[in-house]
Amino acid sequence: MGNEPEYLKNLKPKYKFWLESEDGYVFGQGSFELLRGIQEQGSLSGSSKTKGMSYRYAWGIIKEIEKRMGKPILETRTGGKTGGGATLTLTGQKLLEVYVEFTKAFDQICLNWMDKP
Amino acid sequence: MGNEPEYLKNLKPKYKFWLESEDGYVFGQGSFELLRGIQEQGSLSGSSKTKGMSYRYAWGIIKEIEKRMGKPILETRTGGKTGGGATLTLTGQKLLEVYVEFTKAFDQICLNWMDKP
Repeated sequence: MGNEPEYLKNLKPKYKFWLESEDGYVFGQGSFELLRGIQEQGSLSGSSKTKGMSYRYAWGIIKEIEKRMGKPILETRTGGKTGGGATLTLTGQKLLEVYVEFTKAFDQICLNWMDKP
Repeated sequence: MGNEPEYLKNLKPKYKFWLESEDGYVFGQGSFELLRGIQEQGSLSGSSKTKGMSYRYAWGIIKEIEKRMGKPILETRTGGKTGGGATLTLTGQKLLEVYVEFTKAFDQICLNWMDKP
């Protein structure tokens, strides 16, 4: 993109990114943050707390994604020495990766434009 | 981005793109379509009709963009043989161009991913 006049350079490019199935919305920023939290903390309750969501609400989000994907994205363990927890399935990990790859590419386009002289 | 399993390839990447000033939203898909219509039809009333908006509502959108840009984006003529009309100022044309450039680049990223084997 060419050099832009000053009044355009004061504008910031913004976007929202999400993934859809034929039935509509599947995975966007909120679900990304929830899943990344699960990956980092090893638990759905920890991640939902960080996001300021109730466990029940977060659980509903996970179940909705799984329904629309037709595949589980979370594996849960109960009890045991560590008191249970949750890890992402390969499908869940892949969703995270795809979201990161797209938003990195989009961010790069925005940065390139803003860095233009 | 690498080859993706089938269940991911059934998902479609989607996005919304817009431009913001310090005061918030300035220009997005709705304003883009309105301005493109003005460029094509040479009139705000024609473009607003195509978009299913009242002239007054469309006028409000234009004025809000101009306020947030601090510059006029539309030049209007009244009367004369052709019965008046509207053309985009350079600022208006530049807004269109920037929107097209970003959405083309974003679309390309989406297409590349969907075309992967």
